[in-house]
Amino acid sequence: MTKVLIFGHQNPDTDAIGAAIAFANLQKELGVDAEAVALGTPNEETQFALDHFGVSAPRVVETIAGETSDVMLVDHNEFQQSAADIEDLNILAVVDHHRIANFQTANPLYYRAEPVGCTSTIVLKLYKENDVTIPKEIAGMMLSAIVSDTLLFKSPTCTPQDVDAANALAELAGVDLNSYGLDLLKAGTNLGDKSEAELLDLDAKTFPMNGKTVRVAQVNTVDIEEVFARQDALRDAMLTENATNGYDLFLLLVTNILDSDSELLVAGEPREKVTEAFDVELKNDRASLPGVVSRKKQVVPQLTEVFEK
Amino acid sequence: MTKVLIFGHQNPDTDAIGAAIAFANLQKELGVDAEAVALGTPNEETQFALDHFGVSAPRVVETIAGETSDVMLVDHNEFQQSAADIEDLNILAVVDHHRIANFQTANPLYYRAEPVGCTSTIVLKLYKENDVTIPKEIAGMMLSAIVSDTLLFKSPTCTPQDVDAANALAELAGVDLNSYGLDLLKAGTNLGDKSEAELLDLDAKTFPMNGKTVRVAQVNTVDIEEVFARQDALRDAMLTENATNGYDLFLLLVTNILDSDSELLVAGEPREKVTEAFDVELKNDRASLPGVVSRKKQVVPQLTEVFEK
Repeated sequence: MTKVLIFGHQNPDTDAIGAAIAFANLQKELGVDAEAVALGTPNEETQFALDHFGVSAPRVVETIAGETSDVMLVDHNEFQQSAADIEDLNILAVVDHHRIANFQTANPLYYRAEPVGCTSTIVLKLYKENDVTIPKEIAGMMLSAIVSDTLLFKSPTCTPQDVDAANALAELAGVDLNSYGLDLLKAGTNLGDKSEAELLDLDAKTFPMNGKTVRVAQVNTVDIEEVFARQDALRDAMLTENATNGYDLFLLLVTNILDSDSELLVAGEPREKVTEAFDVELKNDRASLPGVVSRKKQVVPQLTEVFEK
Repeated sequence: MTKVLIFGHQNPDTDAIGAAIAFANLQKELGVDAEAVALGTPNEETQFALDHFGVSAPRVVETIAGETSDVMLVDHNEFQQSAADIEDLNILAVVDHHRIANFQTANPLYYRAEPVGCTSTIVLKLYKENDVTIPKEIAGMMLSAIVSDTLLFKSPTCTPQDVDAANALAELAGVDLNSYGLDLLKAGTNLGDKSEAELLDLDAKTFPMNGKTVRVAQVNTVDIEEVFARQDALRDAMLTENATNGYDLFLLLVTNILDSDSELLVAGEPREKVTEAFDVELKNDRASLPGVVSRKKQVVPQLTEVFEK
């Protein structure tokens, strides 16, 4: 049987890694020779979850074709967020909760996307549909993914299905949802010892928009001003990233996980698309986005619409 | 509530129409203001099924935006096979069993694709998952779709899930699977009274392949030579279609539904891609493809691979 590698997006977050681990375990139970891998090392939040539940971090890979041609994707579909050689691979399945774009296959495949807050919420359904029991530590990783993606249910991407899934998984994992959830989120806000380049790379995705390449990074914090104390160095690092990687426009979304507001820092052009998309003025390259916590629902569609009209 | 239109691909076949009717009924039961429509009139096979089960043909539309912005797609995803204004619409859901290509959305959506023989097999799962009862006449349309797409289980696209679904639906619909199935397939083989242009348009799809536009039409018959008695007129009509619609290459797949072989007729260029894809020589623009009955599994991937290398 051909080996199947299962992975989430580049710069993996807790869902990219947790859903890969959970979906690979399900596939193994269904008889597939599957292994969860990752397109990057776990961030501190994810490492907190792995440590808490005693799960090993998935092996990190950059390309796949040297090992196998058969893959399954979780928590992403856009090729520029995937393995470097994704276009040479045979994609057997995708489980995701994002828009579909920059994605195509030559063959029919299994594709399961639902507009819910977290891939792991969908993976939980797949366990139920296949009547497979979820091990305690995998339930813990799936729970962590839901807490992370929904900011403990505060994100507008969160649906009642995510809340129900998290409650069921917390029971399976044997943790108190709220206290574990807050501990997990706080573990990801330790930004002080990171360089600007590390901070920009923690949770960043690239989006082609009508001929321009837009990079959108997000960091979670409990103190937005602590992050903006480094604004000049961050702006310089963003401009360096633009020059090095060919990004036209770099947006850094700094999100306060306690009050669910964000502050935006912008580098590159065309910045008038930013002011139009969010109906804000940029002052000193910054804008406040009250109530904005979701890149997927409150940032990318608005930018896409303005770029494509 | 916004009206939601649900439809299958252009040149609709029995699955495009049957799955649209079945999925629209399910959505209505779930509280959505849904209507099944079609991007063309039913072919004779589909009309046989509609008449047999006393179901009205869906209203035919070409564009959608004048009525609503919210749509759900069945049995296709590629934009060039969809409504003319698909790029202006908000795609809420897709249920399909084809490759994914030339498709994108700005927002997360519900996407359910499985590599089974028929969309209606997946729609049956969705009824079960939502615990909704299938009316007898809708079971009949779903059964007809499975028989049509799998050529009564002879196509290599057919899976055990399709066979199980068809058996369950035949019981709900109150018909004998084999005798009804053969009657349905034969109803679609009445080609003698059709013009060459009508014949080429019965079941035809367009595929962009590395800068070229490839049209692949398929007709079912019980007598391949009866169709090729009109070979010269068919070739002329294919060249006219190429010139009129900007196709580079036109393939007509004539499939004998009784012995599950096909004969290919080719017009346009680059025809060396055809000889390479199927490892055949073209003689008098023709080639025999023994055992080939599925455009999706035995024609399009092979062509795509040759065009893209």
